[in-house]
Amino acid sequence: MAKVKKAPRPKAQTPKGFRDYFGTEVTERADMLKTIAEVYHQYGFDALESSGVETVEALGKFLPDVDRPNEGVFAWQDEDDAWMALRYDLTAPLARVYAQYRNDLPLPYRRYAMGPVWRNEKPGPGRYRQFYQCDADTVGSANVAADAEICAMLSDTLERVGIPRGDYLVRVNNRKVLNGVLETMGLSDDAQRDAVLRTIDKFDKVGEAGVRELLGKGRLDASGAYIDGVGLSVDQAEPVVAFLTSKSSDVAKTFANLRDAIGASTIGAEGVGELEKIGDLLAVQGYNADRIEIDPSVVRGLGYYTGPVFEAELTFEILDEKGRKRQFGSVAGGGRYDDLVKRFTGQAVPATGVSIGVDRLLAALREKGRIGGTVQGPVVVTVMDKDRMADYQTMVAELRNAGIRAEVYLGNPKNFGNQLKYADKRESPIAVIEGGDEHANGMVQIKDLILGAKIAENATLEEWKERPSQYEVPRDQLVAKVREILDLNP
Amino acid sequence: MAKVKKAPRPKAQTPKGFRDYFGTEVTERADMLKTIAEVYHQYGFDALESSGVETVEALGKFLPDVDRPNEGVFAWQDEDDAWMALRYDLTAPLARVYAQYRNDLPLPYRRYAMGPVWRNEKPGPGRYRQFYQCDADTVGSANVAADAEICAMLSDTLERVGIPRGDYLVRVNNRKVLNGVLETMGLSDDAQRDAVLRTIDKFDKVGEAGVRELLGKGRLDASGAYIDGVGLSVDQAEPVVAFLTSKSSDVAKTFANLRDAIGASTIGAEGVGELEKIGDLLAVQGYNADRIEIDPSVVRGLGYYTGPVFEAELTFEILDEKGRKRQFGSVAGGGRYDDLVKRFTGQAVPATGVSIGVDRLLAALREKGRIGGTVQGPVVVTVMDKDRMADYQTMVAELRNAGIRAEVYLGNPKNFGNQLKYADKRESPIAVIEGGDEHANGMVQIKDLILGAKIAENATLEEWKERPSQYEVPRDQLVAKVREILDLNP
Repeated sequence: MAKVKKAPRPKAQTPKGFRDYFGTEVTERADMLKTIAEVYHQYGFDALESSGVETVEALGKFLPDVDRPNEGVFAWQDEDDAWMALRYDLTAPLARVYAQYRNDLPLPYRRYAMGPVWRNEKPGPGRYRQFYQCDADTVGSANVAADAEICAMLSDTLERVGIPRGDYLVRVNNRKVLNGVLETMGLSDDAQRDAVLRTIDKFDKVGEAGVRELLGKGRLDASGAYIDGVGLSVDQAEPVVAFLTSKSSDVAKTFANLRDAIGASTIGAEGVGELEKIGDLLAVQGYNADRIEIDPSVVRGLGYYTGPVFEAELTFEILDEKGRKRQFGSVAGGGRYDDLVKRFTGQAVPATGVSIGVDRLLAALREKGRIGGTVQGPVVVTVMDKDRMADYQTMVAELRNAGIRAEVYLGNPKNFGNQLKYADKRESPIAVIEGGDEHANGMVQIKDLILGAKIAENATLEEWKERPSQYEVPRDQLVAKVREILDLNP
Repeated sequence: MAKVKKAPRPKAQTPKGFRDYFGTEVTERADMLKTIAEVYHQYGFDALESSGVETVEALGKFLPDVDRPNEGVFAWQDEDDAWMALRYDLTAPLARVYAQYRNDLPLPYRRYAMGPVWRNEKPGPGRYRQFYQCDADTVGSANVAADAEICAMLSDTLERVGIPRGDYLVRVNNRKVLNGVLETMGLSDDAQRDAVLRTIDKFDKVGEAGVRELLGKGRLDASGAYIDGVGLSVDQAEPVVAFLTSKSSDVAKTFANLRDAIGASTIGAEGVGELEKIGDLLAVQGYNADRIEIDPSVVRGLGYYTGPVFEAELTFEILDEKGRKRQFGSVAGGGRYDDLVKRFTGQAVPATGVSIGVDRLLAALREKGRIGGTVQGPVVVTVMDKDRMADYQTMVAELRNAGIRAEVYLGNPKNFGNQLKYADKRESPIAVIEGGDEHANGMVQIKDLILGAKIAENATLEEWKERPSQYEVPRDQLVAKVREILDLNP
């Protein structure tokens, strides 16, 4: 007789490119989102939460920086054949929401949004297919005061979440200046313009000489690979180089350099004018070059930016995976995008906003040891007699009512060592023990696990004897003694 | 010549069955989640956040209560043909996570999780395809103390988020008791057992007589439709009716009735024993029938529960869409499910947990007017002279530094009326006005919009003259005056 084949067991695995977050990883992110929301709220932004799912029609067929339709998103067909997809950012849903509710929303509409977004991209180290974004946008204001405000708010936000002044820089540029430079160069070919933009984006990495090579014939990469150039002549490339090297410690000089680089371009002049206005507005409020600076090398890859663009960088150094020092880099970026709502309504609606990469920001704070220090496990009440569970539950109830995180050990109580191992794994500060003898005498044992661990590590036998880490106290002093050990005010 | 056809504009629409949340809808939920997390944390539960996406293999092919494979979930194929899906609850991902990390996680593993889940179901009024759940589970404990604790925590949580004692009830039952009843009845046919379970679930609605009819030949519905019955004889149906009507105000009597209903069933006796233990543990901690009660009519639809089941109901009445009074109903539920991890590992792992329907709970609090009262819009600094934007930005910076939510009007400032309409739409408490004259005199106008609205609504002309809602103060007293109007302590 043939055996009935059992279905194989499913694999217990996080899907490829996704990850799980445990304990403080979750709560630290929640705390950061709350802090950011407070700053955004203070600036007059209102919360918006759209769902993770949008119609593909509303999202548009193109992910920014991705050429193929539907590439880069997770999409599926609804029961009536309509295509749905997970949102890949929080800006596309904002454009949809604004177009949908525009008659009811205030104008300008200032909103913030935070939540996961999904990208159907090849995962890599530290690169996941679901991650958090935290955005603030002003829709319906053409005034560059809106852009300046976003920059100021970004600076405030970074300081509020724990990045001190000096450890970050918000860098501001304007796409119109760049367009002016390209106009001056007489570049009409879109592919060539894009190639120039991509080259500018590499300035930080390859420097002036590298950019010259990449704009011309090409360049031998550090890895030994030859990177084809854009194919411009030396003269043609000159305005780009002038633009990229226009930054001076003297802001007025930077603007003079920019005016040279854009030549007679009208759009370029408009861009420089806007940048000056932003600089003035920020300077009046005390946001100087130690926090926000004009920097012509900021490009921001996304095709949809139409005016000011900004980027927040953390300027301190970390060690990369190969142990080499490098700057931590970008944690937020944004800019002005005047055409996103137009897709829906036919009318251009000016908008500007910023997106903070919350997970990168958290990584930076952990790297600097500014968060992640204090894990507080629960006080664990051990079970010496499984028939007296109600007594142990009463103890934890008393502790919780006194504001102390506490729990009864709920595993199999047979092996007492397992209970202490459990407390250790939970990073519990204290274990409470009440066996038959203690119960008969109206006493409980309170074990200071943190002190115990310290003593076990460092102390001599004498010290160990002198500094007991376990105390016997009357049952009715349980809460008081635990509070004392936890150093809580009475 | 043929005209080039333009692609039609995309529709700006929330996908069918999804919705957008604005302003306080978002922040009130965030506040509630934070409060719930605090209670869960206090009880020793640790946070876990898995991604919204799981492999279909890990989720299992069946949604609880749905018979067809892949029905009820949003699923799609990955680039390497693997099926992925959005999670439909937070329990299936917990089973996957526990199986995957079981060697590193503490045992028992107590975790809480909160976030959106997705159901590919027909949307209806108040029924969306994405909604929030907020779960706490203890994995790896067979002790019913774990179940009792979850019930106590649920009670604490409801009170902490603003449901006063008396307005809710946590009702507890045990599937084993029910299984004992079915065993006593000699029901071996699965379909018939399921039909009986579904009938029991209707007890609240149709009462004892209705259940008798539905267990027998059938019943004429209120709508006039005839509902087929299970087809049991009157004698066969008797244990079910005895079970359903076993609840007494005297708990001891309830248990006696239950023992009668289960007859000689071993599993039934085990269930009653567990229920008694849970009742005792809770009573010792003071959770009495005004908060948590034993109630045999609680079934909880999900097939996977294996022991204690619980449900939290709000007991106050609301008006339904037709204006009729009805109880608000269930806002949370859960129970013991010992087989979910077994799918992955082959080993049964006992687990118990609860899921709170956060959106329903919020709806209840709004219904009772306990949240949603205080919308505080920003102070709006109006723009009288667009060339003095820097001055206005300085004002809001001062206000924000004093802890006051504030913003400059960033729309087109030409029409001053629009600026006040904007402030109105934002529910701003105050508008600040500094025109050329005020500026020359070093003064600002401060308009109390809330008082203004009140006066406009109720006051006589005399009162209106006596109670000005607009004040002119020196520029350097802007912050002080705004604080005074907002009633903030100096």
